[in-house]
Amino acid sequence: MPSAARRGRRPGSPDTRASILAEARSLFAAQGYAATSVRAVAAAAGVDAALVHHYFGTKDDLFLAALQAPLDPRSVLLPVAEGGVDGAGERLLRTFLSVWDDEVTRLPLLALVRTVFDPDRRQMVRDGLMRMVLGPVGAALGVDQPELRMSLVGSQLMGLVLARYVVEVEPLASASADQLVAAYAPTLQRYLDGPLT
Amino acid sequence: MPSAARRGRRPGSPDTRASILAEARSLFAAQGYAATSVRAVAAAAGVDAALVHHYFGTKDDLFLAALQAPLDPRSVLLPVAEGGVDGAGERLLRTFLSVWDDEVTRLPLLALVRTVFDPDRRQMVRDGLMRMVLGPVGAALGVDQPELRMSLVGSQLMGLVLARYVVEVEPLASASADQLVAAYAPTLQRYLDGPLT
Repeated sequence: MPSAARRGRRPGSPDTRASILAEARSLFAAQGYAATSVRAVAAAAGVDAALVHHYFGTKDDLFLAALQAPLDPRSVLLPVAEGGVDGAGERLLRTFLSVWDDEVTRLPLLALVRTVFDPDRRQMVRDGLMRMVLGPVGAALGVDQPELRMSLVGSQLMGLVLARYVVEVEPLASASADQLVAAYAPTLQRYLDGPLT
Repeated sequence: MPSAARRGRRPGSPDTRASILAEARSLFAAQGYAATSVRAVAAAAGVDAALVHHYFGTKDDLFLAALQAPLDPRSVLLPVAEGGVDGAGERLLRTFLSVWDDEVTRLPLLALVRTVFDPDRRQMVRDGLMRMVLGPVGAALGVDQPELRMSLVGSQLMGLVLARYVVEVEPLASASADQLVAAYAPTLQRYLDGPLT
């Protein structure tokens, strides 16, 4: 007779969960997001796909767990997109700064940014950036040329991260959110809906 | 009697040169550019300051050697500044792309960019960026609020490096110089001489 603790629960243990996560990280890194299925992760870990869903949710959730993302960018960015493209440059920047100015999220995000210099992890960061952050925002805002426009936005935000939080260039490192909005929001807004040619 | 090879040369050897460079790197990294004198580097290496100048030239030259910079940014950037602030955004970007699109300079520059994540080296990268690249360009162009304007320029260029050459986000990774100029030159130009508040 099964013990009370196991009754009604699917088989698994902390080791199983860690093993699934390790296989997911390995497959996402080696093959990219698109070519990696939950079924393949489950097979590599020697478990059923249903158990992967049980522990981690959707493939996107599994991917964010594999990335060790400290937050779900989709839920953070949803309010930015809801307001439409007018003023989205400023809203995106204010949301971005609120996440990065908070040490609790900044430190794990910095660890993630650092991995772009690891060739084995670069593909995961690229997938994460495009599929979890820039892609959904571009789609929700309905911008034209979404890949170009959102990668321009991403390049300015990545540069702001490097300058303000990594290299700590002054006056950017000490600037207030309002000062940064005055400088950067027009750039982001033009990348979202201005002329690019 | 001294050998022919040594006649007319100051004392020194490849080991002395390497030792000076190692001490310079250590002092610049620990104390920053401003607080490090050629005299202090010479003392740490146990040689005369004149020998440091003999091997490396000025303090700026010694600093660039310690950074392992693959080029002298001052000579590369001089033509950008000579044309005045009108159109400087586009000239700066084209010069920047010509340096970064060339693998011979790109690979050592990428090695340098990677060191910003090393806390012991970060100060050197910051000093190098501000004193050798952004500072001289801002001064030569005569922009107002040079620290703010040039650090904004630097943040967009750093982000372009990360997006195009490190993360390799498309379409930025494959874009032509003309396409990048169309997208980025107006941003850089506004950072140089446009309204920021």
